[in-house]
Amino acid sequence: MHTFKDATEVEINRVMEQSWAAFEVYRTCSLRQRAGFIRTIATELGSISASVVAAAMQETNLPEARLKNELTRTIFQLNNYAGACEQGNWLEVRIDTAIPERTPPKPDLRKLLVPLGPVVVFGASNFPFAYSTAGGDTACALAAGCPVIVKAHPAHAQTSGMVAEVIIKAARQSKMPDGIFAHVYGAGFEVGKSLVMHTHTKAVGFTGSYTGGKALFDWAAQRKEPIPVFAEMGSTNPVYLLPEKLSQSPIEQAKLYAGSITLSTGQFCTNPGLIIGIDNADLQKFITALGREIEQVPPSTMLHPGIAKAFAANRSRALMQDQVNTVAIAQQPPEDNQGIPTIASATGQAFLNNPVLHQEVFGPYSLVIRCKDMDEMIAVAKRMEGQLTTTLIATETDMRNNRVLMETVKNSCGRIIINGVPTGVEVCLSMQHGGPFPATTDARFTSVGADGIKRFARPLCFQNWPNSLLPDELKDGNPLGIWRTVNNELTKV
Amino acid sequence: MHTFKDATEVEINRVMEQSWAAFEVYRTCSLRQRAGFIRTIATELGSISASVVAAAMQETNLPEARLKNELTRTIFQLNNYAGACEQGNWLEVRIDTAIPERTPPKPDLRKLLVPLGPVVVFGASNFPFAYSTAGGDTACALAAGCPVIVKAHPAHAQTSGMVAEVIIKAARQSKMPDGIFAHVYGAGFEVGKSLVMHTHTKAVGFTGSYTGGKALFDWAAQRKEPIPVFAEMGSTNPVYLLPEKLSQSPIEQAKLYAGSITLSTGQFCTNPGLIIGIDNADLQKFITALGREIEQVPPSTMLHPGIAKAFAANRSRALMQDQVNTVAIAQQPPEDNQGIPTIASATGQAFLNNPVLHQEVFGPYSLVIRCKDMDEMIAVAKRMEGQLTTTLIATETDMRNNRVLMETVKNSCGRIIINGVPTGVEVCLSMQHGGPFPATTDARFTSVGADGIKRFARPLCFQNWPNSLLPDELKDGNPLGIWRTVNNELTKV
Repeated sequence: MHTFKDATEVEINRVMEQSWAAFEVYRTCSLRQRAGFIRTIATELGSISASVVAAAMQETNLPEARLKNELTRTIFQLNNYAGACEQGNWLEVRIDTAIPERTPPKPDLRKLLVPLGPVVVFGASNFPFAYSTAGGDTACALAAGCPVIVKAHPAHAQTSGMVAEVIIKAARQSKMPDGIFAHVYGAGFEVGKSLVMHTHTKAVGFTGSYTGGKALFDWAAQRKEPIPVFAEMGSTNPVYLLPEKLSQSPIEQAKLYAGSITLSTGQFCTNPGLIIGIDNADLQKFITALGREIEQVPPSTMLHPGIAKAFAANRSRALMQDQVNTVAIAQQPPEDNQGIPTIASATGQAFLNNPVLHQEVFGPYSLVIRCKDMDEMIAVAKRMEGQLTTTLIATETDMRNNRVLMETVKNSCGRIIINGVPTGVEVCLSMQHGGPFPATTDARFTSVGADGIKRFARPLCFQNWPNSLLPDELKDGNPLGIWRTVNNELTKV
Repeated sequence: MHTFKDATEVEINRVMEQSWAAFEVYRTCSLRQRAGFIRTIATELGSISASVVAAAMQETNLPEARLKNELTRTIFQLNNYAGACEQGNWLEVRIDTAIPERTPPKPDLRKLLVPLGPVVVFGASNFPFAYSTAGGDTACALAAGCPVIVKAHPAHAQTSGMVAEVIIKAARQSKMPDGIFAHVYGAGFEVGKSLVMHTHTKAVGFTGSYTGGKALFDWAAQRKEPIPVFAEMGSTNPVYLLPEKLSQSPIEQAKLYAGSITLSTGQFCTNPGLIIGIDNADLQKFITALGREIEQVPPSTMLHPGIAKAFAANRSRALMQDQVNTVAIAQQPPEDNQGIPTIASATGQAFLNNPVLHQEVFGPYSLVIRCKDMDEMIAVAKRMEGQLTTTLIATETDMRNNRVLMETVKNSCGRIIINGVPTGVEVCLSMQHGGPFPATTDARFTSVGADGIKRFARPLCFQNWPNSLLPDELKDGNPLGIWRTVNNELTKV
């Protein structure tokens, strides 16, 4: 394992000064220039595919196929957000033309989104590419017009460094200002804190644990000038098994979920950690089948020893709780740093009474909640904290018959899946990857999909400007041909 | 003056429980139902025009004409936001249709904005109608689908109570759930704190002082579940006098600004508190003319004794600073609780060295900064904190010749006005009333214009839902006929 020296205060200060200087140049770059730069990163990243996947395999223990897919997705994200950047819909251009004859005269007003300033990005340990150095936060911030400072995740610092070199090379090729991108090492929390507290930092993107994300949020709120933090902090992603659908396919659902729970050793923020059913013969069939499936899944090595240790501790703590039964454990004994697939079960009442059972166990673990009836299932749903996703295994009749449950879950998550699994986050404009606290620190935004660009931008209004001095996006005649709301009507004219 | 009893903890708890129950009903109401309710408030408010203006005159000391205008604007806002609510563009509907043949299959994903939950609104003392009980925050929250709890401003509690009765009457007429709107009295900060800290509160809207807004922000951030706060906390609204334009019209600019500085006794958050020029003969002409104008403006009674006292103290403190000269004071002596129009002046160097001179003096006061050259003006601009507005008095040549200044001011405010005054905030979609901290606590949103609705909403994604159970906004065939982004293209089909 490579070791990297933590950045010093002096180095951080120099990095942030360069970042600010780069911001003053970069925010005047056109959408096309920004998009070109991001596309160059995508191309350059593709060109080191073999070596960077090899490095990531070593650092994260993730299998090659998974990492290759993730790299492909990362390249897709970069190109997709570059396309969205250039298309310009995210700018939310509004124009209200003057009415000089009105009393008082109505001024000419035009508005678009402008970048916030340097963005500090904390990558995720479980996605060394897609949610890390050149991941979604970086792509969104660059599209918004913000320089990026990545704090390398210590668990894949070498991979991160290789990707950072690619970004810096792409920046030079694209003639971007020095300081448009910086890469900082730091194993402890001090480097992260210094970056968040620096006066030139204007926003933060984070993917990781509740403890990590909440600390960043608190630091940011305590600054003299508070700044927005978008921290995606994981979730238990409850799955509700509705009676009609479950009676039709208890075994198929169990097989589907055994796969989702153990995919990538359960190391996904959308991993289904809670499965809620009504205690009857169908649920018993489901539990038995799920247990049988889980027993056959071999333990696999987790991302790094810290995560393996946390999984072991959180799993033990959950299993030790009163009224929690262990349903199944993988039969093959785990080696060091492996996560052992595990299913537990508890009654609805036990869940309602014990906050420990609401907490995420990051890894291949899921708790099945047996509710005595639909009222108890609704009570469980009402008690649920904010989630990234909620899944309903349900027929249309189930959905029609259970309006209160439907409305309750709509109010506590960012995405509701019908008859599927929460793992697998499609990168597209309609995706919402975010949700009410504690899933994220700002439910009003997403970290996946091009709408994520808006996390790092703010509206700026131009009143009574001469047309020739307006940004091209706002000029008469719409020279960029983007969608704009002109006098309350959307138009490309 | 009427006195109102502060709400007790028990009462606040009851109000919040009712508000939550109302939320569970109201968020399922259609856009048309929400808009109908908001329009009924507008109509009912119009019907008590005479009595509510009379009450406000007594409580705020604002003149009748001003209050009538403000009421008209408030009714316009309600109708305008109701129209935007119904039009549905603010929902940001995105649809990506399924591609089942892809590997892996692409699911059907559809997204729209949904309400956050009960919103606590703190009205402004200087706008008893437009930024208070039935003001912009309330209208936006109701349009978003959120119940509203207004904490009455103690300085116009009777007016607030009359408006609240109108809203409750409109709610009954529109068959809205009980608890959709609540009105709470509280003279001290305890009631406000209890409301912000209540677990059912999901967002806060505020217009007022930095001290008040920052306290709400800090409480909200310290909750177990932090919630978003949109606090508009005022601003010094710098005005830059560029050389060519100033040389053309120093006297006219002085007259224009004497009016803007003293309008409504200077009690606007967009009041021009700093005027920055380059020290030359033209600036001297401007200062002399501005002083002569100000001397002729009679002092007028401020909103309430607390504001008059704060103005007197802040004005004295500013005038006492080293290297600050008093340019002009209104000749007519002030009576009790009147604000006396005042102009002071200081060098650019003095401003750069003294943070006190950067602070807002809320009332009819402005400080003219005399810079030794354009470099010093740029240095002043770079040091400026976040602002609601910045104004440039400039010819096109001035703008072309001073790109660095232009780019600097773009980065520190929400609205840039060319050759006008910052006072007067047009209610339209292109308006940005907001800006970098400390102007507001979240520069990514506006509190004026229908885009303000988005402060109180978050995206919710529906994956693989049966069409018949989707919200109408997301259904195939677009039954509501709203603009939607379908497979990356904006369309009404």
